[in-house]
Amino acid sequence: MASAPESILVVGSVALDEIATPFDSVHEMIGGAAVHFGAAASLFAPVQLVGVIGEDYPTERLQFLERRGVDLGGLERRAGESFRWGGRYHYDMNTRDTTHTELGVFADFRPRIPEAFRAARWVFLGNIDPALQLSVLDQIEAPHLVACDTMNYWISGARGPLLEVISRIDMITLNDEEARQLSGQPNLARAGRWIQEQGPRHVVIKKGEHGAMLFSDADIFFAPGYPLENVVDPTGAGDAFAGGILGHLARSGRDGARDLRQAIVYGCALGSFACEAFGPERLRELTASEVERRVRLFRELTHFEQPVHVEVP
Amino acid sequence: MASAPESILVVGSVALDEIATPFDSVHEMIGGAAVHFGAAASLFAPVQLVGVIGEDYPTERLQFLERRGVDLGGLERRAGESFRWGGRYHYDMNTRDTTHTELGVFADFRPRIPEAFRAARWVFLGNIDPALQLSVLDQIEAPHLVACDTMNYWISGARGPLLEVISRIDMITLNDEEARQLSGQPNLARAGRWIQEQGPRHVVIKKGEHGAMLFSDADIFFAPGYPLENVVDPTGAGDAFAGGILGHLARSGRDGARDLRQAIVYGCALGSFACEAFGPERLRELTASEVERRVRLFRELTHFEQPVHVEVP
Repeated sequence: MASAPESILVVGSVALDEIATPFDSVHEMIGGAAVHFGAAASLFAPVQLVGVIGEDYPTERLQFLERRGVDLGGLERRAGESFRWGGRYHYDMNTRDTTHTELGVFADFRPRIPEAFRAARWVFLGNIDPALQLSVLDQIEAPHLVACDTMNYWISGARGPLLEVISRIDMITLNDEEARQLSGQPNLARAGRWIQEQGPRHVVIKKGEHGAMLFSDADIFFAPGYPLENVVDPTGAGDAFAGGILGHLARSGRDGARDLRQAIVYGCALGSFACEAFGPERLRELTASEVERRVRLFRELTHFEQPVHVEVP
Repeated sequence: MASAPESILVVGSVALDEIATPFDSVHEMIGGAAVHFGAAASLFAPVQLVGVIGEDYPTERLQFLERRGVDLGGLERRAGESFRWGGRYHYDMNTRDTTHTELGVFADFRPRIPEAFRAARWVFLGNIDPALQLSVLDQIEAPHLVACDTMNYWISGARGPLLEVISRIDMITLNDEEARQLSGQPNLARAGRWIQEQGPRHVVIKKGEHGAMLFSDADIFFAPGYPLENVVDPTGAGDAFAGGILGHLARSGRDGARDLRQAIVYGCALGSFACEAFGPERLRELTASEVERRVRLFRELTHFEQPVHVEVP
């Protein structure tokens, strides 16, 4: 019998989102990287969440996370307004404009990792200021695997601290444009290798509808995007993707080549579920057996029989 | 022992290309859809080529195709200049500008399928005016599988004839933007289904560095792009891709679900080789065993072990 899965520590934003698509919109939807990550990862393993909210945050709407095994003991409540973000998706649902960003209490976020969380073995540093990501690295004791996310804003505006973070972690997740921007290499295969050379053993490039690529030591792995016919809201899909990856690794307690390939597929599965409803609504009701079924479908999507009896003309 | 592979008929452009990349350039390079397709497909099966060239075409540079089993009996030589095309690739090598198009004798191309070619069982209609594609369909007798390629120019400028072509063929290859444009569906899964509903059982969406998607009856299959670190020239990669697909099908003499999935991978392999040198230079020297090796690598790129002993928390 396997032992109980180890906990995953996530540090990141907890927000209230206003999201508009060409077809529908929502207001004051719970969101933020830590919420989306936690909603996904908690399907696999216990999660410890560190973030900050204002006095106005509807904490009752995070209760589904607690019921799923997310420890909110590191979610600080401070005087002031919660972080609010607004986005509007274009007709193709692949691109969006940010309509507003009101940092509120998130402006002064200084992550303090509770004593009980410092022994975390699996850690996800959500997309925040690299200086804060470094402060988290200084507070945790002996992690087995640390993954971080980032974005174009930090790549151009905080390159030095970001490269320091990257030199100290085991896995980075970033999208294809960010990988090109960070590496200065338009070719994705070279970009992945370049980023590996800065430190992380595992570089995960997110390609939205085109799936994801993993560069892991000398290994390269591709997972496709799930062919969803109805994308409702891609917000948070990248964090749910990371939650699926770390969730599978923490649950299995291993991070060998085989586990990493599987983890990327779990990530793609969780990312695809995240797009099926606004905010974390689809992840909230998602079951472990639905996840396993979709992972099997991913295998069907890319499997082919090796031709062995080929006549060469 | 398998019987000899059946021939593949290709109808398309035979050109002289001027290609510039950020790193190098070539002038008067042999090119055109029929040449790139033929260079790829002839690694698998005999090819019958129908096209037109002017008096100035350096036919000795097509001799490698004849040696490989391409019958040039349908390559008409007419008074006038050959079709010339020029393109300049951007820094990312994924996008390009057309710098010139001089149709020459191609302007009056009226494909005449030689008597000996009319019984072709496997047919590829390269990217030409849909009216000409229709005239080819009227000349061939009892094809087993007809594939066609097209482009944005015909989708917007000759939609009616193009839809008529599509209603009469078995497979269409087009890129993701063309699929969205043709179907009016920004979602690729829906775009693929929509195009299938217009007639073709098999819709193949080319995604460049992101690989390809096959919609085949109710089946969906993804093949990744090969992670080439050195893309020299993508010109003709889409035609080499189609050549790999039809080549594998004609060679195996079958087009079942298993064969189609394999064929898409052969297509991706040939498309990736095509990018390794200017024009058809890499395909000219390519060997069948190099192709088989790369197909095995494609399997490695997407294979993962189905997790079976997962503890659900």
